[in-house]
Amino acid sequence: MRSEFELIRRHFVHPAPGTRLSVGDDCALMTPSPGQELAVSTDVLVAGRHFFDNTDPYRLGRKSAAVNLSDIAAMGARPRWATLGITLSPAQDEPWVEAFARGFHDELQVHDTDWVGGDTTSGPVAMIAVTILGEVPPGQALLRSGARAGDDIWVSGTPGDAALGLRFLKESLPLAEEDRNHCLARLETPTPRVALGLGLRGIAHAAIDVSDGLLADLGHILEASGVGASLELARMPRSAAMLRQQALPDWPLLLLSGGDDYELCFTAAPEAAPRVQRAAAAAAVPVTRIGRVTDKGGRILYDGDGRPMDMAWQGFDHFRNA
Amino acid sequence: MRSEFELIRRHFVHPAPGTRLSVGDDCALMTPSPGQELAVSTDVLVAGRHFFDNTDPYRLGRKSAAVNLSDIAAMGARPRWATLGITLSPAQDEPWVEAFARGFHDELQVHDTDWVGGDTTSGPVAMIAVTILGEVPPGQALLRSGARAGDDIWVSGTPGDAALGLRFLKESLPLAEEDRNHCLARLETPTPRVALGLGLRGIAHAAIDVSDGLLADLGHILEASGVGASLELARMPRSAAMLRQQALPDWPLLLLSGGDDYELCFTAAPEAAPRVQRAAAAAAVPVTRIGRVTDKGGRILYDGDGRPMDMAWQGFDHFRNA
Repeated sequence: MRSEFELIRRHFVHPAPGTRLSVGDDCALMTPSPGQELAVSTDVLVAGRHFFDNTDPYRLGRKSAAVNLSDIAAMGARPRWATLGITLSPAQDEPWVEAFARGFHDELQVHDTDWVGGDTTSGPVAMIAVTILGEVPPGQALLRSGARAGDDIWVSGTPGDAALGLRFLKESLPLAEEDRNHCLARLETPTPRVALGLGLRGIAHAAIDVSDGLLADLGHILEASGVGASLELARMPRSAAMLRQQALPDWPLLLLSGGDDYELCFTAAPEAAPRVQRAAAAAAVPVTRIGRVTDKGGRILYDGDGRPMDMAWQGFDHFRNA
Repeated sequence: MRSEFELIRRHFVHPAPGTRLSVGDDCALMTPSPGQELAVSTDVLVAGRHFFDNTDPYRLGRKSAAVNLSDIAAMGARPRWATLGITLSPAQDEPWVEAFARGFHDELQVHDTDWVGGDTTSGPVAMIAVTILGEVPPGQALLRSGARAGDDIWVSGTPGDAALGLRFLKESLPLAEEDRNHCLARLETPTPRVALGLGLRGIAHAAIDVSDGLLADLGHILEASGVGASLELARMPRSAAMLRQQALPDWPLLLLSGGDDYELCFTAAPEAAPRVQRAAAAAAVPVTRIGRVTDKGGRILYDGDGRPMDMAWQGFDHFRNA
């Protein structure tokens, strides 16, 4: 294995226009835009837990950036800079590192985000810690706490597809090739909804990204806002792949509690619906109204016949599922 | 083990005045000071590599913050905000987490730095990834690349004490109780030289923090600045503990190549020496002139009798020593 410094120089330094100083000093130096607030998010991914050791390293690099960009998107912030702290195990050889770094860099580039620095070390298991910094005008961040009774509840994309992909990988769920490609792409290279988040500034009252499952993450909005919700299963957006799994007895669970989708769930006043649709069209992301915020604390999910369903509003909790 | 969300709420949320929003939304939101540049540093610590699993967790928490604060100090920046990404193995029970979080928080508090967010997960081995953000007026950052021929070379404190402490732990080097306490404190709770770094703005031409050994880190300054150096072993500051180890055949190696000191090594014009001394006195940190920057690329270390010593200018490299 090459030395730490050589590894960093070779793979982890990319030209970062707008950054005065990158890897190679004690710190990176950046010039913030005047009058903006800073939004910062950190995520940790561990081999064997958040990804498989045989996951394609280029895709993993992209996803490592994407899951953090998704947090920035959920605040309505514009991503600017990223740092990467990485622990490499013997399973990560130099081609792995090269492909990972390329994927990480490419995903950042898509969202005009500069990779400004980080730290590299070795250990018994691969671990990836990403911190992303974004900017948002004061008072315009999309918080979890802003939902109001009467708001529509929206979600982007088609949740649950990543969970279908995971079930294919872990339990060999039979999927047609087209569906398999779609679901694995959603699982392995999710698309952070950065443009949608920016477009929802001044429109959405509250937002979160769906990483732990739709119901669980919506639950964080409801808790932070002190409100309840009424949802309708029949309104939930489903991909062609999900529609073809209607015979699965637990497809609603995959749809509502599957993790790793990185879609945005948000609330907005009913009269803002046309503006929401225009923002979504401009960002080229489909959005769907799935329910309504209520002033009671209760959370009710109705099935297709208008009967309340018995479903735990609980998502993936890393410790609980350890 | 408690759930991830409970763990974070219980131990990882501290009031952060000046931060509008901390753990509990997709991002933390901070308000930067107008007209400053941002300095960002990331460090990763892995159990069994950078610390022992039986290291006191409170001290480890302090050190995890300190090693990053030290990078900020070496830029002459003022630390403002920190995030922590942590992977906990089964060896880290809740009392461990509580003590670690308390230590991390306490060290940040000493340097007026707010703990604004992070991520917690579990894995087979403990890993700690810290990112610290600081602020520095444009053009005033202390870079590695600013050293000029004729500059004095300075170092703070007494390097090598952490290496003595490590040798006690790993090889049972006999140390008097007083020396042992001193060296273990330097190893386990190093003091980031934040006030000194701030005081050296406008005085020092180049600076770095000594994490990989004095010669190796000074070497980074020399390389970045395209200059050489002439050092004198007899001028090197030595603690009472180091002086009592003169019988050790390799005490110069501990002094010059031991890691984990987190002192500052910097260069300044000879006529600035009184200002350097005043800045050091104001920061209550001793500083010592150990040599001079030369215009040739050569690096020479003289022994007490003025003879060049044969010593590799190489420090601790995590991969090479794996």
